[in-house]
Amino acid sequence: MKNVRLQLFVSFLLCTCFLHAQQAKYIFFFIGDGMGLNQIQMTELYGAELQGNIGITSLLFTQFPMSTIATTYSATNGVTDSAASGTALAAGVKTRNGCIGVMKDRVTPLKSIAVRAREAGCKVGVASSVAVNHATPAAFYAHNENRKNYNAIGHDLVAAGFDFYGGADFWSVTPQDSIGLYDLARDNGYTITRGYKEFQKKVRTSDRMILFQRVAVSKIDSRTTPYAIDRQKTDLTLSEITRAGINVLTKDPEKGFFFMIEGGSIDWACHSNDAATVIHEVQDLDRAISVAYEFYQQHPDETLIVVTADHETGGLGLGTGSYELNLSVLSNQKISECEFSRVLGNLRKKYNGNVSWNIVKNSLSENFGFWKKIRLTLQQEERLKIAYESSFINSTGLVESEYQKDEAIAAEAKKIINEIALVDWISKGHSASFVPVFALGAGAENFRSRTDNAEIPRKIAEIGGYGLED
Amino acid sequence: MKNVRLQLFVSFLLCTCFLHAQQAKYIFFFIGDGMGLNQIQMTELYGAELQGNIGITSLLFTQFPMSTIATTYSATNGVTDSAASGTALAAGVKTRNGCIGVMKDRVTPLKSIAVRAREAGCKVGVASSVAVNHATPAAFYAHNENRKNYNAIGHDLVAAGFDFYGGADFWSVTPQDSIGLYDLARDNGYTITRGYKEFQKKVRTSDRMILFQRVAVSKIDSRTTPYAIDRQKTDLTLSEITRAGINVLTKDPEKGFFFMIEGGSIDWACHSNDAATVIHEVQDLDRAISVAYEFYQQHPDETLIVVTADHETGGLGLGTGSYELNLSVLSNQKISECEFSRVLGNLRKKYNGNVSWNIVKNSLSENFGFWKKIRLTLQQEERLKIAYESSFINSTGLVESEYQKDEAIAAEAKKIINEIALVDWISKGHSASFVPVFALGAGAENFRSRTDNAEIPRKIAEIGGYGLED
Repeated sequence: MKNVRLQLFVSFLLCTCFLHAQQAKYIFFFIGDGMGLNQIQMTELYGAELQGNIGITSLLFTQFPMSTIATTYSATNGVTDSAASGTALAAGVKTRNGCIGVMKDRVTPLKSIAVRAREAGCKVGVASSVAVNHATPAAFYAHNENRKNYNAIGHDLVAAGFDFYGGADFWSVTPQDSIGLYDLARDNGYTITRGYKEFQKKVRTSDRMILFQRVAVSKIDSRTTPYAIDRQKTDLTLSEITRAGINVLTKDPEKGFFFMIEGGSIDWACHSNDAATVIHEVQDLDRAISVAYEFYQQHPDETLIVVTADHETGGLGLGTGSYELNLSVLSNQKISECEFSRVLGNLRKKYNGNVSWNIVKNSLSENFGFWKKIRLTLQQEERLKIAYESSFINSTGLVESEYQKDEAIAAEAKKIINEIALVDWISKGHSASFVPVFALGAGAENFRSRTDNAEIPRKIAEIGGYGLED
Repeated sequence: MKNVRLQLFVSFLLCTCFLHAQQAKYIFFFIGDGMGLNQIQMTELYGAELQGNIGITSLLFTQFPMSTIATTYSATNGVTDSAASGTALAAGVKTRNGCIGVMKDRVTPLKSIAVRAREAGCKVGVASSVAVNHATPAAFYAHNENRKNYNAIGHDLVAAGFDFYGGADFWSVTPQDSIGLYDLARDNGYTITRGYKEFQKKVRTSDRMILFQRVAVSKIDSRTTPYAIDRQKTDLTLSEITRAGINVLTKDPEKGFFFMIEGGSIDWACHSNDAATVIHEVQDLDRAISVAYEFYQQHPDETLIVVTADHETGGLGLGTGSYELNLSVLSNQKISECEFSRVLGNLRKKYNGNVSWNIVKNSLSENFGFWKKIRLTLQQEERLKIAYESSFINSTGLVESEYQKDEAIAAEAKKIINEIALVDWISKGHSASFVPVFALGAGAENFRSRTDNAEIPRKIAEIGGYGLED
C-alpha cells in the first residue's frame, strides 16, 4: 500500500511539473469590456427564458474547464477605468485611472504582454469591436498618460508594428487626424481593408493588415462597429475580425501568436444601461470566442483561450425584489437605445420637427413592442408622454451617457423595458465588482484560484514562454 | 523526447486518478446566506481602505486554492429563495421557492448530503448564526412544503438525530412551541446548552448536543444571534458554534464528519441594505472559517472546506458612478440599523415619547459619526429631520424589511451612510447573481469550473464517499 501511495505521489509531482512546463504556442486573450458576472448571467438566463425555461442556456465560454474571479481596482481608484484596467491586463502593473501603458508616475513606459510575445518571435494581433485606439486595445501597444490622446495613441499603434489590428476605425478628433493615421500606417507597410470581403481579397498579398468597418470615418460614427442588435448584413462583426486575425497570424506555421480581442461595445451599452443591447453584445463576444474555439479544436495541445473583463459597468442587478425575472420581454426590443434615437432623429427630419405622439407611439410599438406585445401601466405611458414632450415639444436636449447622447424618449423606453424585465442598474459608470476569468487549453490550470487583473498577463506570459518577470 | 512525453502523459493520467480517488474524512460546508460576490469584495476593499490603501485586504477563504462561481435559480423562479437554494445545496435537486427538502411536487422527500453522511457512518452537525430551524439549516434535515412551518421543521430536526446543532434558538411562533421542542429534543437524548461556557461544561458528558445563545427565547428575539457589529462580550458567536461543533463531531476518532455552518445573518443585513453590518457579518463568517482552517491544518489530507452562498441579496453595487469608493466611512457606523432602532425605542421610553431633535442628533453622531466625523450636506440633514418627524412627531410607523422593522430615522441614517460610502442596492430582496464557491483541501480540485448550486452537494458527497447518485 505504501508503495502505491509513493508511486502516486511521484506521479503527482511529475504531473505538476508537466502542468507547469506546459506552454501555449497560440494564445487568445478575450476581454469583454464592462462584462461583469451579472452581464453574463443575464445573457444566459435570457437564453433559457426565450425557450420557455427557468435556468440558463450556457454560452460557450462559461463552459470552459477553468473559471474564477479577479479583482480590478486601479493604483489610484477603488473603481478602475478601462485605461488602468487595460494596462493591468496588458502589462501586469496597476496604474492610475486614465493612463495607458505607463506607470502611475505617468511617464515610465510599461512593456505589454503583446510586445513581449512579439520579441519572443510570435505574431501579434490586437482587435476590438470599438476603435482600435480606444483604451483597452491601446494598453497593448501604446504609452500615454491620457487615454484621450487618440492621435498619439494611433501613432504608437503603427510604431508597435504588430501584424494585425482590427476594429471600427481610428477614433480621431478631426478627419485630418484619421487621414494622417491611415497614411502613416500605409507608409509603414500596413494594408488597410474595409469590411471582411475586401480583407479576404487582399489577405494573400499582405503581411501587416488593418481591418476596419466598411464605411470610413467621415461617413459614420467611427468609434464603434454597430451594436449587434442593430447590425446590418454588411456590417463588420467581431467574429469576422477574429477570423481575419487568425488568418494573418497563422501565415508562418513556425510561429505562434498572441491575439487580444476586445468585446468593447458591451461597456458602451452598459454605460447607457441598455440591457437588451448588452445581451446581444455578450452573445456576440461568445460568437467571436467560438471562432477561437474552432482553432483550439485543431490545435488543442498548443492553444490557450482566456476570457475576462476589465471591470463591471453599471452595477447591473438581476431582480428588483419580487424573486422573479422577466428577461424574455427584452426580445421585444429590436434596436438599441442609441439606434432608436437615430430613428427618432430621422422622424424629426421627415416631419420637419412636427412629430405627433401617434407617430412616436407607432415607432415605440415597432421597436420596443409597447402596447402591441407589452402592456404598459398608465404611469409608464404617462412617463413616455412626458419624455415625448421633452424630446419633441420642449426640446430640452439629449440624455447623455459615457458614449452616447440619446433622445429622452429613447432613454425612457429603455428604462421602462428594463423595469418590466425586472433588472436595474446602480449607475451609468463602472463598479468595483469582481470580474470573471474563464480559461481553456494549454496552461488553463493556472486560472483556478481568485486572482487580480494584473496577475492575468503574468500567467499568460509564463504559459506563452515570454514571462513578464524582468 | 517521445518517451519523456509518454511518461509525462502516464504520470498525468495517474495523477488524475489520484485526484479523483481522493476522499475527505472531514467536510466543512460553509454557506454565507445572501453573500454575493459584491458582499465579499466590499468587505475586502473596506479592509484595505481602513489601512489607508486602495486595494483589498484578503479574507481567509478567498485565498483558498480553488474558486469558481455557481448559478442559483430554483425550479420555479429565476431568483431563488433560501428554502429552494438550501434544498439544492443540501440534496442536489432544485425545488420550488418555499419548499424545504422536498421535490417541486411539494411532497416527495429528498435525502440530504447530511443524512447520507450519517448513513455512511459519519458524525453530522448543522449550525447557523440564525435560528436552527430557519430555511438553510432546515434543508439539511427537514421535509416540508412550507419553510414557515417552523414547529414541524423543529420536529424534523430532532427526528434527524444529528450529533450537533448550533444557532440562535428555535424560531417558534409561540413560546409553547419552543418549550415543546426543547422537551422533545431532551427526550431524544439531546443536551441543550446556552452559551459557549455552559457548552464547555457539559460537552464531556453529552453525546448529542444543541448549542443556543445564552438568553432563552422568551427574553430576546430568538431568531438570530446578535449581529457581529452589535455583539456584546457574552453573546454566542459563529466561531464558537464552529468550535463547539468540531468538539462534538470528533469525539470518536474513527469516524469522519460532515458539518454545515451557515452565516445566516449576512442575508438579514442585506435585506435591510445595511452595508456596514454586512461587512461585519462577512468578516465574522471568515472568522468561523478560520476555526475550520485550524482543523484543516491538523488534518490537511483528510479535510475539505467548501464555502459558498445560497444567493445574493439586495443587488449590492460597489460604486455609484464616480469611479471611487469611500467604504472606510462605514467604520463610523457603530451599530446595525436594527440596533439603532432599539436605541431610538429606548430613547422614546426614557423621554416618554418626547424625544427632541437634539437628542436624536446626538445619538446619530454617536452611532453613525454624523456631524462629528462625517460632514452632511444640507439635503442629507433635511432628510434626517423629515425621518425624525416621521419617527417621533407623526409616528407613521416602522420601515419594514424581510426580517426587521426599523425606525424611519434609522433607515434614513443607514441609507445616507451607504450613499457617502458610494455603494447602493437594487432591492430589498434576493437577486439572480452568480454566487462564489471557494474550496480547500482533499478533493477541492473538483471546484474549478463554473457550476450550479445543485452540483455542489453532489461533488461534496462524492469526495466524502457517500455519493448522491441513487
